[in-house]
Amino acid sequence: MRILLVGATGTIGSAVERELGLRHDIIKAGRSSGDVIVDLMSTDSIRAMYAKVGKVDAVIATAGHAHFGPLVSMTNDQFMVGLNDKLMGQVNLVLLGIEHVNDAGSFTLTSGMLDRDPVRLGANAATVNAAIGGFVGAACLEMPRGIRINVISPGVLEESAAKYAGFFAGHIPVSSKHVGMAYAKSVEGALTGKVMIVD
Amino acid sequence: MRILLVGATGTIGSAVERELGLRHDIIKAGRSSGDVIVDLMSTDSIRAMYAKVGKVDAVIATAGHAHFGPLVSMTNDQFMVGLNDKLMGQVNLVLLGIEHVNDAGSFTLTSGMLDRDPVRLGANAATVNAAIGGFVGAACLEMPRGIRINVISPGVLEESAAKYAGFFAGHIPVSSKHVGMAYAKSVEGALTGKVMIVD
Repeated sequence: MRILLVGATGTIGSAVERELGLRHDIIKAGRSSGDVIVDLMSTDSIRAMYAKVGKVDAVIATAGHAHFGPLVSMTNDQFMVGLNDKLMGQVNLVLLGIEHVNDAGSFTLTSGMLDRDPVRLGANAATVNAAIGGFVGAACLEMPRGIRINVISPGVLEESAAKYAGFFAGHIPVSSKHVGMAYAKSVEGALTGKVMIVD
Repeated sequence: MRILLVGATGTIGSAVERELGLRHDIIKAGRSSGDVIVDLMSTDSIRAMYAKVGKVDAVIATAGHAHFGPLVSMTNDQFMVGLNDKLMGQVNLVLLGIEHVNDAGSFTLTSGMLDRDPVRLGANAATVNAAIGGFVGAACLEMPRGIRINVISPGVLEESAAKYAGFFAGHIPVSSKHVGMAYAKSVEGALTGKVMIVD
């Protein structure tokens, strides 16, 4: 398959490339490096990326961040960070990408465990992660030409556990190999509309 | 209790007033009518409402709408309708309202069944409904002074079933009495961080 991987240089993107790169042609997209440059905050940039890349069999998004901070002092603008970046970046990748995905192709998005396993300071991320799950569950009903859509919701990856140790007390890190395999299940399998949890 | 009900004139707001108005002092807020006028799209308007109303024991939101339309032609701007209106309207009501809620008070938000029971044209609403659930699940961890927060997720109300019949094939309408009771459970009960489903 020809797979467009947006966010290829991140921890999750690298795990995806290690797994799916074994069997498929990966086109790497990123904000500052890769085969094609894309800014997910800009619909023009997303359109330009798809025009340059051409038809693909799968689109995988492993990019996007949310705001972390105390709820009691969180502002509208801080809350919008996660909505504009991690949520709408991925939603627009789908809305603008459907016509560029081949018949029976797929979209695979990325959320995270903070909606089902919340922590202090994580209200914005929990909101966004849940939102992506809701989007995928409804969007699958309207995908044309047999195109599927799923979201992978991993816990903290082994590689990131030390960096985030203070925020995720007692969260058992997940294997990046297993995370990569979840993306393979979405891309190479038959499921659609699913939140695929990697715990 | 002194309860601020935002969206009092809607179908759900009326059901809430019929139930909780039996036992409590309800202050009605709305976009164009009520004891106090508020535009949930404006943080200044929300601030002005709280300043006018003063301290309350509970805030209930039954206001907000999302965009309904085909996924394959949905634009970023259309998708933002639900995020700015139904999601951020309610989120800002919480972020700006915490200091105006008495100790051991509560927030009760409103989502809907489209995230767990999606339909065609409903991707924006499904996203927003799931997002509110994610928000509540994390926000409860950081509420000060024993303040609680829940969201009510009702199916289509009996009163609205005929109006929306073409969109929700086979959805069994829910009793508006039961919907009102769910808000009573959130306001008068002890639970927090819950998505309270009324099916």
